[in-house]
Amino acid sequence: MSEQPYADLERSRVRRLPDRSSRERALVHAILDEGLIGHVGFAAEGGPVVIPMLYARDGERLYLHGSPASRLMRTLARGVPVCLTVTHLDALVLARSAFHHSMNYRSAVVLGTAREATGLEEKRRALAAIVEHVVPGRSSDTRPPSEFEEKYTRVLVLEIEEASAKVRAGGPKDDEADLALPHWAGVIPLRLVAGAPQPEPDLAPHIKPPPYAEHYRRV
Amino acid sequence: MSEQPYADLERSRVRRLPDRSSRERALVHAILDEGLIGHVGFAAEGGPVVIPMLYARDGERLYLHGSPASRLMRTLARGVPVCLTVTHLDALVLARSAFHHSMNYRSAVVLGTAREATGLEEKRRALAAIVEHVVPGRSSDTRPPSEFEEKYTRVLVLEIEEASAKVRAGGPKDDEADLALPHWAGVIPLRLVAGAPQPEPDLAPHIKPPPYAEHYRRV
Repeated sequence: MSEQPYADLERSRVRRLPDRSSRERALVHAILDEGLIGHVGFAAEGGPVVIPMLYARDGERLYLHGSPASRLMRTLARGVPVCLTVTHLDALVLARSAFHHSMNYRSAVVLGTAREATGLEEKRRALAAIVEHVVPGRSSDTRPPSEFEEKYTRVLVLEIEEASAKVRAGGPKDDEADLALPHWAGVIPLRLVAGAPQPEPDLAPHIKPPPYAEHYRRV
Repeated sequence: MSEQPYADLERSRVRRLPDRSSRERALVHAILDEGLIGHVGFAAEGGPVVIPMLYARDGERLYLHGSPASRLMRTLARGVPVCLTVTHLDALVLARSAFHHSMNYRSAVVLGTAREATGLEEKRRALAAIVEHVVPGRSSDTRPPSEFEEKYTRVLVLEIEEASAKVRAGGPKDDEADLALPHWAGVIPLRLVAGAPQPEPDLAPHIKPPPYAEHYRRV
């Protein structure tokens, strides 16, 4: 890809084990797109607060949404610095020694400043993007927001100003001297799995789960 | 339980939909104990940073660990305010209307101030607790840390000063007027699932995966 990587800026720099880190846009985007929940950090009175939020990516911006009454949304809309982190836990890594136990994961750290969505068109695009991000195929198969609902939803746009990814993969890195120990070593893979869709009790029986629900999976 | 709930303090107060929130210790503990990764927020120069970390709970304290060289660990050890948030995504909630789409989740927000572990005994207890938290049964089935390794690991203790939990469960809350719409409505359950353990290529073939790896699951 000819795309420029993200700049190597201070706050999002991976210092520990920098060989596991990356500024590649494609990698950061892939981690964000697979994720469902971002952990959003901001400064509250007394210290930082981290809140899980749905989001969607649209190029180099992320959309967040919530109630206009929400403290979180009001705080973020003020244009304070925000960090949104998405983590996929791929495996537990069991080494012969306690010290070398680890986990395989992919995380993306995004820094930016949120602003309120400007105008109805951007708001609509953002809300559809969030539904579509969570359940691809759903945004055109649901009643769209009414004017009242649009008014009652606050949409924030977070331009990605800095971002970095960190990835660990593979097995344990045991010390040579430990290789003959009798302890099992390897990885336990982990995966987020969807179960069978459970219809609402008041749903008409002829409405079957659509394929995007029946075969739901991330990537 | 006769235990007092956590105090209803400002920074960890759930303002939106407070009926979904709780200060019950047993609930906060259960969410923390099921989790593997906490998203740890702290103030860096320029704004907040949120980093995924392993942890373990020991009563009303959490243990974190990392390299002494880590910026994150050095910053936290200075006694700055920290927020650690753990989230379980239990289901996607599909409503007839885009507006009422939601997710079922359980999250715990813990606020506190980290301090460095005092003395070798506390450090050992913390490191064993972290291994045991991630893979119950493993801490006594691995080579314990050497003196060098203990020295090379920084352990932080985060006393839980404030905490709250937030939980959403159940189906979509559609508007009466939308119930006859032709869109499927219900929930798609999500679960973190462990696959078959994958042994290291250099593992002696007679060492079989122990039951805690073969049947790994959270709760």
